[in-house]
Amino acid sequence: MAIVIVEILSVGNELLSGITVNTNAHWISRNIAESGGFVRRITVVGDDVNEISSAVKESITRGPNWLILSGGLGPTYDDKTLEGVAIGLNLDLVLDKTAVEMLKESYARRSVNYELNEVRLKMAKIPRGSIPIQNPVGTAPSVQIETTPEKTTIICLPGVPKEMEAIFLQSILPQIKKAIGEFYVIETSMNVIAVSEAMLSPVLSNIVESNPPDFTYIKTHPYYSVDNEPRLRVQLIVRGSNKNEVEMRYNKIFTTLIEEIQRLKGKIKE
Amino acid sequence: MAIVIVEILSVGNELLSGITVNTNAHWISRNIAESGGFVRRITVVGDDVNEISSAVKESITRGPNWLILSGGLGPTYDDKTLEGVAIGLNLDLVLDKTAVEMLKESYARRSVNYELNEVRLKMAKIPRGSIPIQNPVGTAPSVQIETTPEKTTIICLPGVPKEMEAIFLQSILPQIKKAIGEFYVIETSMNVIAVSEAMLSPVLSNIVESNPPDFTYIKTHPYYSVDNEPRLRVQLIVRGSNKNEVEMRYNKIFTTLIEEIQRLKGKIKE
Repeated sequence: MAIVIVEILSVGNELLSGITVNTNAHWISRNIAESGGFVRRITVVGDDVNEISSAVKESITRGPNWLILSGGLGPTYDDKTLEGVAIGLNLDLVLDKTAVEMLKESYARRSVNYELNEVRLKMAKIPRGSIPIQNPVGTAPSVQIETTPEKTTIICLPGVPKEMEAIFLQSILPQIKKAIGEFYVIETSMNVIAVSEAMLSPVLSNIVESNPPDFTYIKTHPYYSVDNEPRLRVQLIVRGSNKNEVEMRYNKIFTTLIEEIQRLKGKIKE
Repeated sequence: MAIVIVEILSVGNELLSGITVNTNAHWISRNIAESGGFVRRITVVGDDVNEISSAVKESITRGPNWLILSGGLGPTYDDKTLEGVAIGLNLDLVLDKTAVEMLKESYARRSVNYELNEVRLKMAKIPRGSIPIQNPVGTAPSVQIETTPEKTTIICLPGVPKEMEAIFLQSILPQIKKAIGEFYVIETSMNVIAVSEAMLSPVLSNIVESNPPDFTYIKTHPYYSVDNEPRLRVQLIVRGSNKNEVEMRYNKIFTTLIEEIQRLKGKIKE
């Protein structure tokens, strides 16, 4: 199992004005976590070339393996993602023949006969040297760019969830899974009564310190106490390359956790 | 009406692994937009001191009027927001007497008699010179910090939504509204049939270019075409300080929009 670090950059004014909940970033994060990757940062910027180009530059300076953008690939005046990415990477935008064919194919699939005018051809103007990826649901192609010397792979996905999800599952996630390699995970959560976050904190701190930090995740989520009796949901995720090793580590942590909760006079609710 | 720029920094591993949807950032954004403020960027980082301190430094370099953090104020080993903020601002963390009183009051309110041990007192260790704000729902106080020379006001809110919302509405939003001053907004959206995003794009582009950009928002949201007939939701938001001016500008834009949709043979659906 290789450590694969991912950043997500969501583009769209509607995400900054509380109109749209950023479910795309959540969906991408979940898919990456379940595949064994690590999302290190999510950034949201508006439909603004300077904001997009700055955020891209800042991200590749931090050196993630992947930077996944979504939103702003369409034909409208406020779809500025490819322009922002091109400026951020100091590349020209060029009309790509393969991307034009993809547009024609997309319109043909939906049996519409739109003229490929300047507004529509904008969707096929992509940063020089990048690879267009067909959109199997909508129109705008996605784009994959390999940066040097940073070695960050940049992916630009559409913002419409159905389109984004289709391209991600078909063309992007398989590449990320291949980079991660063999991966195994065990996850559990339990409801604990009569133990507060503050009481359990030193126990969790000890467990995390004595285990590989990237591969051991324990978090407490308090929920409202009944009759002043604290209630917590405790979540445990153990990951690694090797099934036996993950199972052994999981069993050891789980046993310690149960013992410590009992020592603190806590109860585990079924 | 003053232009007030806000950044949001959400802290929590669960937001990066697809466990929790970032509804806090959405809720804060909506409240700020409805009050006339502008959220320019949302950043999400994990429970990691270096990630938090870097994100704080980067944000204040961009110079927003407000930087609002949420998450990571509790007593557990992975609640690292105040430590990260202190490092980012090059301030010490100090045990604050007022914050200690707030903790006592919070426990008394819930009629619990917890010992103020080291783990619990962590919630009253705040960056030197910052102002603690009582948490009317939970335990951990919030913190307000005025940075110089950047003049960014930093607010650290809890991650538990009910606590975050209560403090924000009671202690933060009134300050932001005061800074914005008089504010007026008109918002509408309409469903348009038989006009595609690409067809309408030049029209919207013209409207936006001939109006004050920060105070005029038009966006098209395509939804799936029926019988290959494109369908769009068009959203229009007009803002400003002065009611008459906003109404005049809104009416002019609205009339242009309807005329142009009719010219393109589009229909407006009731």
